[in-house]
Amino acid sequence: MLAELKKRVYEQNIALARSGLVVLTWGNVSGKDTESGLIVIKPSGVPYDGMTAEDMVVVDACGNVVEGRYKPSSDLPTHLYLYEKYSLLGGIVHTHSTYATAFAQAGREITAYGTTHADAFYGNVPCARELTDVEIDEAYEKNTGKVIAETVTDPEGIPAILVKNHGVFTWGKTPEKAVENAITLEEVAKMALLTEQLSPKTPRIRQHLLDKHYFRKHGKNAYYGQKR
Amino acid sequence: MLAELKKRVYEQNIALARSGLVVLTWGNVSGKDTESGLIVIKPSGVPYDGMTAEDMVVVDACGNVVEGRYKPSSDLPTHLYLYEKYSLLGGIVHTHSTYATAFAQAGREITAYGTTHADAFYGNVPCARELTDVEIDEAYEKNTGKVIAETVTDPEGIPAILVKNHGVFTWGKTPEKAVENAITLEEVAKMALLTEQLSPKTPRIRQHLLDKHYFRKHGKNAYYGQKR
Amino acid sequence: MLAELKKRVYEQNIALARSGLVVLTWGNVSGKDTESGLIVIKPSGVPYDGMTAEDMVVVDACGNVVEGRYKPSSDLPTHLYLYEKYSLLGGIVHTHSTYATAFAQAGREITAYGTTHADAFYGNVPCARELTDVEIDEAYEKNTGKVIAETVTDPEGIPAILVKNHGVFTWGKTPEKAVENAITLEEVAKMALLTEQLSPKTPRIRQHLLDKHYFRKHGKNAYYGQKR
Amino acid sequence: MLAELKKRVYEQNIALARSGLVVLTWGNVSGKDTESGLIVIKPSGVPYDGMTAEDMVVVDACGNVVEGRYKPSSDLPTHLYLYEKYSLLGGIVHTHSTYATAFAQAGREITAYGTTHADAFYGNVPCARELTDVEIDEAYEKNTGKVIAETVTDPEGIPAILVKNHGVFTWGKTPEKAVENAITLEEVAKMALLTEQLSPKTPRIRQHLLDKHYFRKHGKNAYYGQKR
Repeated sequence: MLAELKKRVYEQNIALARSGLVVLTWGNVSGKDTESGLIVIKPSGVPYDGMTAEDMVVVDACGNVVEGRYKPSSDLPTHLYLYEKYSLLGGIVHTHSTYATAFAQAGREITAYGTTHADAFYGNVPCARELTDVEIDEAYEKNTGKVIAETVTDPEGIPAILVKNHGVFTWGKTPEKAVENAITLEEVAKMALLTEQLSPKTPRIRQHLLDKHYFRKHGKNAYYGQKR
Repeated sequence: MLAELKKRVYEQNIALARSGLVVLTWGNVSGKDTESGLIVIKPSGVPYDGMTAEDMVVVDACGNVVEGRYKPSSDLPTHLYLYEKYSLLGGIVHTHSTYATAFAQAGREITAYGTTHADAFYGNVPCARELTDVEIDEAYEKNTGKVIAETVTDPEGIPAILVKNHGVFTWGKTPEKAVENAITLEEVAKMALLTEQLSPKTPRIRQHLLDKHYFRKHGKNAYYGQKR
Repeated sequence: MLAELKKRVYEQNIALARSGLVVLTWGNVSGKDTESGLIVIKPSGVPYDGMTAEDMVVVDACGNVVEGRYKPSSDLPTHLYLYEKYSLLGGIVHTHSTYATAFAQAGREITAYGTTHADAFYGNVPCARELTDVEIDEAYEKNTGKVIAETVTDPEGIPAILVKNHGVFTWGKTPEKAVENAITLEEVAKMALLTEQLSPKTPRIRQHLLDKHYFRKHGKNAYYGQKR
Repeated sequence: MLAELKKRVYEQNIALARSGLVVLTWGNVSGKDTESGLIVIKPSGVPYDGMTAEDMVVVDACGNVVEGRYKPSSDLPTHLYLYEKYSLLGGIVHTHSTYATAFAQAGREITAYGTTHADAFYGNVPCARELTDVEIDEAYEKNTGKVIAETVTDPEGIPAILVKNHGVFTWGKTPEKAVENAITLEEVAKMALLTEQLSPKTPRIRQHLLDKHYFRKHGKNAYYGQKR
């Protein structure tokens, strides 16, 4: 069932682990099958070493396991909420990557200081508000999705968010793109922290340069990369 | 003798070395055989390269070598003290991992700033007091264990401690879990330092969120990971 | 066509990727064939994994593709401008390497604090000014080259520049030397940031020591390395 | 000639390169043959990749090449001066390792903040003064040795020094020990910088604890490691 998507989701979970963004089992990648609406996601707490494509869990939009011998990632309800809310998503990634999570712990957005940021994110990467005690008790993972959605204004242009005191979610049209955005997010978080250390009052990149770089890579006038 | 435990302790010493937490030979892992009460520990100052499971040293609760051609780690009396004091321990790890040791050198606890911390440690990771000159002269390694025990209030909930000016000890029900806690400790130490650099007055994570994450992974209502 | 240069440019693109200076596809190396004046450059947005020497693109001095099935790097016009302006260049590298880019985002030059810097760069590495909106709209990549040239005063002595809010360009008589300069630049950027953290008012290296080290490795009285 | 020492010096140069302390060719290891007084050292500017034990250069105490097809490291006169001055040295290492060099650039000693430091260095690691212009012009590398010797007070207890604006030298009774000291120096430099970031007024480790750890590993009452 969904053999190809399971393989891709598996490979992107492995790619995430190899990227250095994930310590132990603190990360997961999911992918959506557009036709059936089914979601493929990493099993919960299973180490990357020894994991196979067959270990991926297939669930429906309500989170019911359709195939798989493992329980799905405990973050599944957050993934499901985001897939439901934003139909353009084909892949979602969750990590606790070091520098981006430090921003999330400090409750600060990541300011767009340069073109490295602008090549992937059309503006600052925001930090979602804390969940209330009630939201935590009621449905923690699902409400994490809701709180993310409150803050996201441009899911296509800024495919990433910091979750206060927690970590990050990134997404994209495919699992591959979601992982790429997770890698980019961590790198621009590190660069932003270092930039502020070098010059605490560094202003945001000018809008004109941000536009130039973002649209060099995105939209109908993009000219970076090969035609696809 | 205790072939399986020796193999596990050996493998966790190697895992520790590969994790990047250990420079040269500055780290060791021990494990306890619940039935006999014997302890298996890394030999002192032996490089990880070329070391085998057979090089592990078996000692009794008083530190007498029961089997092995090497002297045990010089930190053995600290391990023994902690095993004696806390019967729940099945594995102990000692490292000088970079960021956690920087906290120990600064004499500061590691504040729980986020869920990465809360997933493993139910509160701040404390820093034990300095040993007195007399304590150092009398029985340095054993008294290190005593000073740790003075500070530890919840050995199950916070399975880690900083030793002032020295390094860290972590533990768990198994050697594998103790190593996992050592890896987590170093990562949350790094995140905490970066968080403070981004926002020096960042408050501790709210207790409600700390509870949520800690008990998502621990205790009878845990729902992270696979049933075991 | 230019099989040897394509192989060298390919190998230097791979060397750059392995050096840790490049995340995803954010970097490129080009080389110039002195005889024909043709330029060999990495294709745009193609991942390093699976790329071959045959994938390198050959262009003329105006940027017309002479050979190759891919589009050249979108940064090609910057490379071409620099090759045209400085006839001594045989290789050019572009990266977003972390620490050097943090300086570029902060809009700060990299001060020469030590001999590591002086061994490669005969003075501070400057940061070029921002492009105006008109310069961005008219011909972004070519004008990046022009703005670089405005700032460069000694292309042989200081074979590197920071581009404000963007990243770095380095060069040399060969692609190999340009990559070496990119590696050195990132390392001296990191050392400079750490030096300022240790002692915010650290003065620049004395000119006499800078001279000594630079000319130990460059010019007719150089005595570092083997005779070539 | 001196085949075994050449092999050891070669292997330690490779170990140094693999340790992450050395970028490009910025480091070298030498060893001394006690019997003949001859010195074996890395050739100047030769990349580690492809280098063999046969490429090591054998020189006499005056620096004359006794065997080898390459020129010796340009830092040779510093090595020779130190070997002559301190007869206990059997190996010397020079690096520009990142954190230690940042201290050298800032002109600051590395304070002994913890037992990681005390296990290897019996006190702060000092920073030698700058060379005068005359000293630079007259015999730069030899005078670097002289300026080091001015500052070294305990070559056995503190087998390392920072050279202002330049880098580090470490030494030991063997090339292996000198490399180990170089690795330790870089790690304690990083820990010291992080410690100061966490708590700018952190005091030096208490002398009693420094004594305990240093003499646990050194001298006739040492009890760390295996009997040798």
